[in-house]
Amino acid sequence: MSNSNRVWFTDVAARDGFQIEPQRVSTETKVETINALGAAGVPCIEATSFVHPKAVPQMADAEEVMKRITRYPGTRYTVLVPNLRGAERALACKPDMITTVVSVSDSHNRANIRRRTFETLNEFEQVAHLVHSAGVTLQGAMSTTFGCAFEGRIPLERVLEVVEHYVALEVDGVVLADTTGMANPAHVRQVIRAIQDRWPDLELHLHFHNTRGMGLANVYAAYLEGVRHFEGSLGGIGGCPFAPGATGNICTEDAVHMFMEMGVETGIDLDRLLEASRDMERALGHELPGQVMKAGRTLDLHPLPPGEAG
Amino acid sequence: MSNSNRVWFTDVAARDGFQIEPQRVSTETKVETINALGAAGVPCIEATSFVHPKAVPQMADAEEVMKRITRYPGTRYTVLVPNLRGAERALACKPDMITTVVSVSDSHNRANIRRRTFETLNEFEQVAHLVHSAGVTLQGAMSTTFGCAFEGRIPLERVLEVVEHYVALEVDGVVLADTTGMANPAHVRQVIRAIQDRWPDLELHLHFHNTRGMGLANVYAAYLEGVRHFEGSLGGIGGCPFAPGATGNICTEDAVHMFMEMGVETGIDLDRLLEASRDMERALGHELPGQVMKAGRTLDLHPLPPGEAG
Repeated sequence: MSNSNRVWFTDVAARDGFQIEPQRVSTETKVETINALGAAGVPCIEATSFVHPKAVPQMADAEEVMKRITRYPGTRYTVLVPNLRGAERALACKPDMITTVVSVSDSHNRANIRRRTFETLNEFEQVAHLVHSAGVTLQGAMSTTFGCAFEGRIPLERVLEVVEHYVALEVDGVVLADTTGMANPAHVRQVIRAIQDRWPDLELHLHFHNTRGMGLANVYAAYLEGVRHFEGSLGGIGGCPFAPGATGNICTEDAVHMFMEMGVETGIDLDRLLEASRDMERALGHELPGQVMKAGRTLDLHPLPPGEAG
Repeated sequence: MSNSNRVWFTDVAARDGFQIEPQRVSTETKVETINALGAAGVPCIEATSFVHPKAVPQMADAEEVMKRITRYPGTRYTVLVPNLRGAERALACKPDMITTVVSVSDSHNRANIRRRTFETLNEFEQVAHLVHSAGVTLQGAMSTTFGCAFEGRIPLERVLEVVEHYVALEVDGVVLADTTGMANPAHVRQVIRAIQDRWPDLELHLHFHNTRGMGLANVYAAYLEGVRHFEGSLGGIGGCPFAPGATGNICTEDAVHMFMEMGVETGIDLDRLLEASRDMERALGHELPGQVMKAGRTLDLHPLPPGEAG
């Protein structure tokens, strides 16, 4: 639980966002997007994932992306890995942090990587050993924490068991991910409180999707529980594999704008972030769900209509 | 301040939503939408506004709409009026409630109706007398409560002055409207607390726009302050005159869905509401911003992928 008046964002557009793009995103667009995020002062960027290229063809250029990006000194670069092979490939690219990912629900984990949740977590013992031996920070992500599109609501005990496994692996923090946008503010607070009760010093990162419009409400709810680390995607890029047309991750710049309006520091240059978002939208060639890029900042005022001045 | 586990929605699609539609919305579509909202159990519907047809041509059929709608017994029908002439026309149509509207900022009020805020409020004395004499409930709406696109943030004292005028007119409640989506959760709580401090028994209705993505976060923030009355528009129909492409009102069914997920009663049949929203989308012929109509309810589960059953 923190009372700090500062929040930290991780942008996952280059991974969670691009991953679901119907057209192949060029390595150049990926590198430009990641560099623009770094230039805007985003404190952490999830740059890619080291998954099997057959499983996620969009991430086949993971090594190339890591080689070509500019590493901004104020930014940490993390990559997602699902298994030991991924961790080996990732470490060769010298990220600042490695994020392992497992689904809290068995059915979602099996649908993704054909293993039960705790089979994957057991395999992470070797991953943790490898990552720690390399002196790299380890973070544990938990998909479907707030609900699974196959199983529905996840029992709280199950969530706590997964956290317990991650704590035993000596992760630096866990990412509670609402993979298909099923969280609501009351549930978010309940889950966070239960985890904070048992592990008061564990750093919690909240990863919300705006699939059903509750994204920023959930961010605010988590903030009220003292959470200060959030994940979002530039422009709100991303989607939901179960609902064509639905939006995906919360939009980083909309969340940053909300915190700025609330007087909470983010360390991010919002103007540059908005520019990065518009550039990415142009490169991808389709409209993104971000709202502030369309409406402007709250305090971008407008001239009075003719004849009404003074 | 209420601890009740029930909220009440007013849907404003037929007024705030249709008002900004670029194409003329047929009276039939208006009547069908209002009837579908009533059939879904929406407790209050803002059916139209009695403004000058030259100022808002889309509302020129106000009398016709009021004549043709079916009045569901569990639903209250309110109409918006800006002045005495509007109130006279409205009363002839026998609404359950009349909502007067004024902007808290002078420049927005002048841009809309060429009067300063307190000139309009003074004119409302006659309106209040007329409405009360007819035995009709009176409600006072306050545009730009959380910010004005011309003036920016509104001083809290100014907001309180407008509330004070409305209280003197013996309104049954006030609508705090975030006309162009400038509110943030911290500001919302501050304004509500200040009003509740002075008028603890005054019924507050919160009208948010999702222009910058904060709509449901603001709803949740207001709920935490004890607010139990909210306005939204079916499908999230509406827009922002200052930002083409930006969304307008919060989406009623997305907000209803959020409260249902939180275990808060709304009295509304969400399935029928979603059906009404999809019907309206078809009638209007363009995509609406509502998320739940695209993604489905949180607990609409999906079948496991082939080979992963059991």
